[in-house]
Amino acid sequence: MAKAKPTKRMGELPPFNRAEFEGRLERARGLMSKARLDAMLLTSEANLEYMSGFSTQFAWNTPTRPWYLVIPRIGRAVAVIPETGLTNWIATSWVEDVRTWPSPRPENEGLDLLADALMDVRRRFGRFGAELGAESRLGMPVGDLLRLKRTLAGFQLADCMGVMRSLRLIKSAAEIARIRRMCGIAGDVFDAMPKLLTVGDTERDLVRTFQAAMMLGGADKTPYTSIGSGPGGYDSIIMGPTTRRIRKGDVFLIDTGSRYDSYFCDFDRNYAVGHVPDAAKRVHELLWLATEAGIDAARPGNTAADVFAAQAKVLVDGGIDLGNVGRFGHGLGRVMTEPPSNKPGDLTVLRPGTVLTIEPSAMYGRGKILVHEENLVVTEDKPILLTRRAPREIPVIRA
Amino acid sequence: MAKAKPTKRMGELPPFNRAEFEGRLERARGLMSKARLDAMLLTSEANLEYMSGFSTQFAWNTPTRPWYLVIPRIGRAVAVIPETGLTNWIATSWVEDVRTWPSPRPENEGLDLLADALMDVRRRFGRFGAELGAESRLGMPVGDLLRLKRTLAGFQLADCMGVMRSLRLIKSAAEIARIRRMCGIAGDVFDAMPKLLTVGDTERDLVRTFQAAMMLGGADKTPYTSIGSGPGGYDSIIMGPTTRRIRKGDVFLIDTGSRYDSYFCDFDRNYAVGHVPDAAKRVHELLWLATEAGIDAARPGNTAADVFAAQAKVLVDGGIDLGNVGRFGHGLGRVMTEPPSNKPGDLTVLRPGTVLTIEPSAMYGRGKILVHEENLVVTEDKPILLTRRAPREIPVIRA
Repeated sequence: MAKAKPTKRMGELPPFNRAEFEGRLERARGLMSKARLDAMLLTSEANLEYMSGFSTQFAWNTPTRPWYLVIPRIGRAVAVIPETGLTNWIATSWVEDVRTWPSPRPENEGLDLLADALMDVRRRFGRFGAELGAESRLGMPVGDLLRLKRTLAGFQLADCMGVMRSLRLIKSAAEIARIRRMCGIAGDVFDAMPKLLTVGDTERDLVRTFQAAMMLGGADKTPYTSIGSGPGGYDSIIMGPTTRRIRKGDVFLIDTGSRYDSYFCDFDRNYAVGHVPDAAKRVHELLWLATEAGIDAARPGNTAADVFAAQAKVLVDGGIDLGNVGRFGHGLGRVMTEPPSNKPGDLTVLRPGTVLTIEPSAMYGRGKILVHEENLVVTEDKPILLTRRAPREIPVIRA
Repeated sequence: MAKAKPTKRMGELPPFNRAEFEGRLERARGLMSKARLDAMLLTSEANLEYMSGFSTQFAWNTPTRPWYLVIPRIGRAVAVIPETGLTNWIATSWVEDVRTWPSPRPENEGLDLLADALMDVRRRFGRFGAELGAESRLGMPVGDLLRLKRTLAGFQLADCMGVMRSLRLIKSAAEIARIRRMCGIAGDVFDAMPKLLTVGDTERDLVRTFQAAMMLGGADKTPYTSIGSGPGGYDSIIMGPTTRRIRKGDVFLIDTGSRYDSYFCDFDRNYAVGHVPDAAKRVHELLWLATEAGIDAARPGNTAADVFAAQAKVLVDGGIDLGNVGRFGHGLGRVMTEPPSNKPGDLTVLRPGTVLTIEPSAMYGRGKILVHEENLVVTEDKPILLTRRAPREIPVIRA
């Protein structure tokens, strides 16, 4: 058993206050009116916790019991949750109308209570929204949603992802503080990489060591830590860690989506073991400059497509073939990847409070790839970096 | 930055071999015939990875891009995945027919390719199964599933959770080895608790320290670590860690669902700081005996309800009011809670290879609760414990 005690941790950020939730609710109701929704049924971790303040690990790690939140356009919010979650709910959420059932009860997992709550909603448009649209993942069995739909015949099932997307696109100061905190913790661990890595470690062990350091530094969860490594460069940026050993001559990348208080950072750092190969050096410099351009383009009024274009121009001017690149960054918050996508055709207009990753990548050599990433928040003026800017040259770890 | 280097880790378990997947596929096809399904469309982490061998953190941490696996009753399996995942797929899955699209592409996230793959399926029953039923969480937007359903008019959408549940209920030796490994790592960390805890730590910091130790001990992920603490006892067993400080006189519980190679352990341990209060001592003894009874009842031919009844009898005989208790344990594997539920009415018959948690709990005093938990695998004969049995008396940490 290794010694695993932190030396020092910062105090925690204060919980979200009541005004934060009142603001979210008010904005939600305005957007619901525009979207012609009388209510929203929220079931996913990000949306349910965002609106209710409920905070739990339990609900999202077991699919046995669904958790429901009904936000009517007019009237009180209603939570319909498993009885076992009541203490947790009361301790964390402002929503006072909580209805419970003894779960597990597979033949009726709270569906009758949920139907009642929806039937009580004051109707103007005859439509309620559920999480159906792009980038959604429903937090209840689809079969039960379809059953509910039949029960509520006359109250039309529609999509609420547009409303939730607009709401969550603009982060509050308290939300930004959480992302900034998480970026700081990860930044410290990235800086400590020369101490963390033992040459000869497997990727898998290095990722464990990295994740442990994140915890000891104050992260709450490390859901995502990918690594790519190879002699002179790596060829994959999203893979789980393998049993490949890190050796002298390698270039490697670690990319992490980790959480402080339910908010993610999402960025990566590159390292070279022994020395930096010339090709990697050249491409890294281009990516660093592309990132600068991406950061500079993250201004209010610009679109996500503009942020892509600014990065792409630097790479193309530098002789990189963009090929079929998906996107150069995305939104960030309670989910590791949120809308928008920095890609051609995404005309989402950036506004103060939009948090983005700037993430250019380039193929080079024989199937090699390099990627770079920073996190920022759009302001009225210049964007503010939430990550400590990566070094312009790939850091070298002595082998 | 704390020092975070492990002293020693065990070698990794070998990957699942080809025969493992051939066996799963053969069993799946038999069950599909019984369920009158011509194909299954799998989209969730547990089911897609179980059938394909694909291993990724990326796919399940970003809802931007869905991943699809089509298992026909007759003919080749087809993967329909985002282009960016191809390298990862080829490196980890046996499924060779892989079709990709450049994602993100919100207007059509691979739906046309998926429809083509399903249209090619040889039909006998006219039905394909998707993840719709109890305890399912669909891994694609529901709106897209409904669109697919309209496109495939004539090929009826049905539920495949019954098939997947039956398949996954019986674990192979290689699966059990993973759960056993994870239970061993967690057991070592639980044993080290007296060294890990500094009296005065917040619950939140203690959980971070605990999770770091899990990583350094060889865990890959720590998705779930709840803690309950309080003077003389705790009143919640599923809550996230709070900023409450652990003090002399406290009884506390840590419960973890952590992963080695995509397989979970799920068990808890109790501790007392300074001394064990009498009430907690008495209830803990009852729970320890109830656990013995639950373990003993986990025999092939018995039902999950029998495992509940054996535990309940000990508690009721000991004077505990069961109240509205949900269940006394559940299945365990790629998901932290899998079917069955050890509860009245769950008539799932246990078979060799069924992995269960035995988890009796009892309310006592003024709103206090105690819980106990072990993990085991059912065999032809006596069950085999995968956890090191908890001490009969609550361990005391010196304050």
